[in-house]
Amino acid sequence: ETTFRASEHQHIRYNPLQDEWVLVSAHRMKRPWQGQVEPPILETVPRHDSHNPLCPGATRANGEVNPHYDGTFLFDNDFPALQPDAPNPGLSDHPLFQAEAAQGVCKVMCFHPWSDVTLPLMSVPEIRTVVDAWASVTEELGAQYPWVQIFENKGAMMGCSNPHPHCQVWASSFLPDIAQREERSQQAYQSQHGEPLLMEYGRQELLRKERLVLTSEHWLVLVPFWAVWPFQTLLLPRRHVRRLPELTPAERDDLASIMKKLLTKYDNLFETSFPYSMGWHGAPTGSEAKADWDHWQLHAHYYPPLLRSATVRKFMVGYEMLAQAQRDLTPEQAAERLRALPEVHYRLGQK
Amino acid sequence: ETTFRASEHQHIRYNPLQDEWVLVSAHRMKRPWQGQVEPPILETVPRHDSHNPLCPGATRANGEVNPHYDGTFLFDNDFPALQPDAPNPGLSDHPLFQAEAAQGVCKVMCFHPWSDVTLPLMSVPEIRTVVDAWASVTEELGAQYPWVQIFENKGAMMGCSNPHPHCQVWASSFLPDIAQREERSQQAYQSQHGEPLLMEYGRQELLRKERLVLTSEHWLVLVPFWAVWPFQTLLLPRRHVRRLPELTPAERDDLASIMKKLLTKYDNLFETSFPYSMGWHGAPTGSEAKADWDHWQLHAHYYPPLLRSATVRKFMVGYEMLAQAQRDLTPEQAAERLRALPEVHYRLGQK
Ligand SMILES: O=P(O)(O)O[C@H]1O[C@H](CO)[C@@H](O)[C@H](O)[C@H]1O
Ligand SMILES: O=P(O)(O)O[C@H]1O[C@H](CO)[C@@H](O)[C@H](O)[C@H]1O
Repeated sequence: ETTFRASEHQHIRYNPLQDEWVLVSAHRMKRPWQGQVEPPILETVPRHDSHNPLCPGATRANGEVNPHYDGTFLFDNDFPALQPDAPNPGLSDHPLFQAEAAQGVCKVMCFHPWSDVTLPLMSVPEIRTVVDAWASVTEELGAQYPWVQIFENKGAMMGCSNPHPHCQVWASSFLPDIAQREERSQQAYQSQHGEPLLMEYGRQELLRKERLVLTSEHWLVLVPFWAVWPFQTLLLPRRHVRRLPELTPAERDDLASIMKKLLTKYDNLFETSFPYSMGWHGAPTGSEAKADWDHWQLHAHYYPPLLRSATVRKFMVGYEMLAQAQRDLTPEQAAERLRALPEVHYRLGQK
Repeated sequence: ETTFRASEHQHIRYNPLQDEWVLVSAHRMKRPWQGQVEPPILETVPRHDSHNPLCPGATRANGEVNPHYDGTFLFDNDFPALQPDAPNPGLSDHPLFQAEAAQGVCKVMCFHPWSDVTLPLMSVPEIRTVVDAWASVTEELGAQYPWVQIFENKGAMMGCSNPHPHCQVWASSFLPDIAQREERSQQAYQSQHGEPLLMEYGRQELLRKERLVLTSEHWLVLVPFWAVWPFQTLLLPRRHVRRLPELTPAERDDLASIMKKLLTKYDNLFETSFPYSMGWHGAPTGSEAKADWDHWQLHAHYYPPLLRSATVRKFMVGYEMLAQAQRDLTPEQAAERLRALPEVHYRLGQK
């Protein structure tokens, strides 16, 4: 009988937060790659370009002129997927043809006045202003909408059409699909075990250690046991916190600092400006904000596509789209590689 | 009060087959695109290349030499994600850390001896041999495994590393995630309504007509009401058929012919060899094959990434990864565009 070794023997793992399985086939990293190689990532971005609609002083598509902002800057997306006043599609006439109303707003948030920086190249106090801006926009839009999705698409590989450091905020009148799944799972776990799923999960990972990437006084970063993307991570507060606005000043400073460390490690992994999509999940907001959401624990997901190098990504296609997510290295291997990387950015260390 | 129009007013739609919602924001096609443009698709592939491991007579990574095949050719994947003998990870010690055994096999199926053809450029009798090979491999691997996933990744954009026309077959000891979802939905629909979900769905689409792309004596192709990818389609038999091997000779010929038409339309849309991932879903197989699977209806999903042109794709990132799938044109608009396209391939018409 062969002894099971996760790094050699394929197996499936369960994601209890999103109720999904992933196939882990780590022996697959051995195969040669002859497929598509991405264009190299453009590293030379001008600090200021008056034609870039995200820059201070630039004119946007709707004719508005940006202020000469010097910290973060929040404005309405000129091409929003969600608008506040869309009419209701009306009652569905058949159970297989269900449509429902969707209202919302889409905002863009610039992180910094300069186009040639990214979060890991910003200072901790500068990142702290981003954290504060995230908390405020959650508060502001959460007053009206049940879900406020903050997300950052970084890099052309992630469909990001502008190199200026920024994220987006889409608030909606409905709980999006993945929010619904996380709500169901966390609700069920709490009623069965009497504590929040992600509080117990964070505690277990602190004990088991093999998937930890970074720890600080108030935060943890780990590669989840059920990670799908090669170097996916989960960022969790140690304290039970339901939403971004609840974070204390000390927790916000510490968050800025651990984010800088994580994103520096990401950039150092393949010595490139590491592409990813990331986003925050916290308890629903809106008119039900006062209900009992104690089963929720605030967290951020980082989903980076790169697998082998700065130009070879993981393709989530075929089997993944039709059957089940599949990964080519174990979460433990990914965590080990990220842990071993320096916390000084490769572009700053060269000086 | 504004009257609701799906092409102007964002709304959400429900996918009853996979239990998921999609945000439809068709007004979004108006925004300009300044993001990543894909490298042009390489159209000049040599008909035969003895270094290409998929060609007749070529030597593969494991040293085996391919026969001089002249139809389809099925062989074991040299870098399989699923192997027949992986040991069991053993009992999980915690509900948040669940792993299970996974065994299986991965095969590759060449469609044709020539590297410079694709399905739409093959003749109907040649495509018919592919249909027969799909049915046989389902039968063969389905004798042992509960799920046999046939899928084709076409084009470098879909992670396909070899231009030779081929698909893959991954058979597993477990029901993959998406199969499980389709099982749950079809089972529930049958017990509530007394007939298979996709039989009623196909009938409704034939009545409503607005999402039909192609119909033939035995088959339907439509853009599902809940489509996520811009030009996603669903291919359905008209008769209640649970699995590929059950198809009659007439249904197989007709399938070859409607596939050629669909894929010709796809290529004609942007006058390019249209990339996609596609795959077949049918009732589970293996030791439970004789159980009651009457709630299943055989179908194929086509998931093509292109949105605006041969080089501008839809990015499923940020909001889509963190919150909910989102599309930029309505399924009805997509169906109308596909319907209007000629059934003669743009490269053959030029002669
Ligand atoms: O097996 P291939 O074609 O080399 O690989 C491709 O398809 C597989 C199955 O969908 C994916 O897991 C890979 O990410 C993709 O690159
Ligand atoms: O809004 P952007 O950055 O132009 O667009 C990008 O992010 C959106 C939200 O994740 C996606 O829907 C688009 O496909 C992507 O290209």
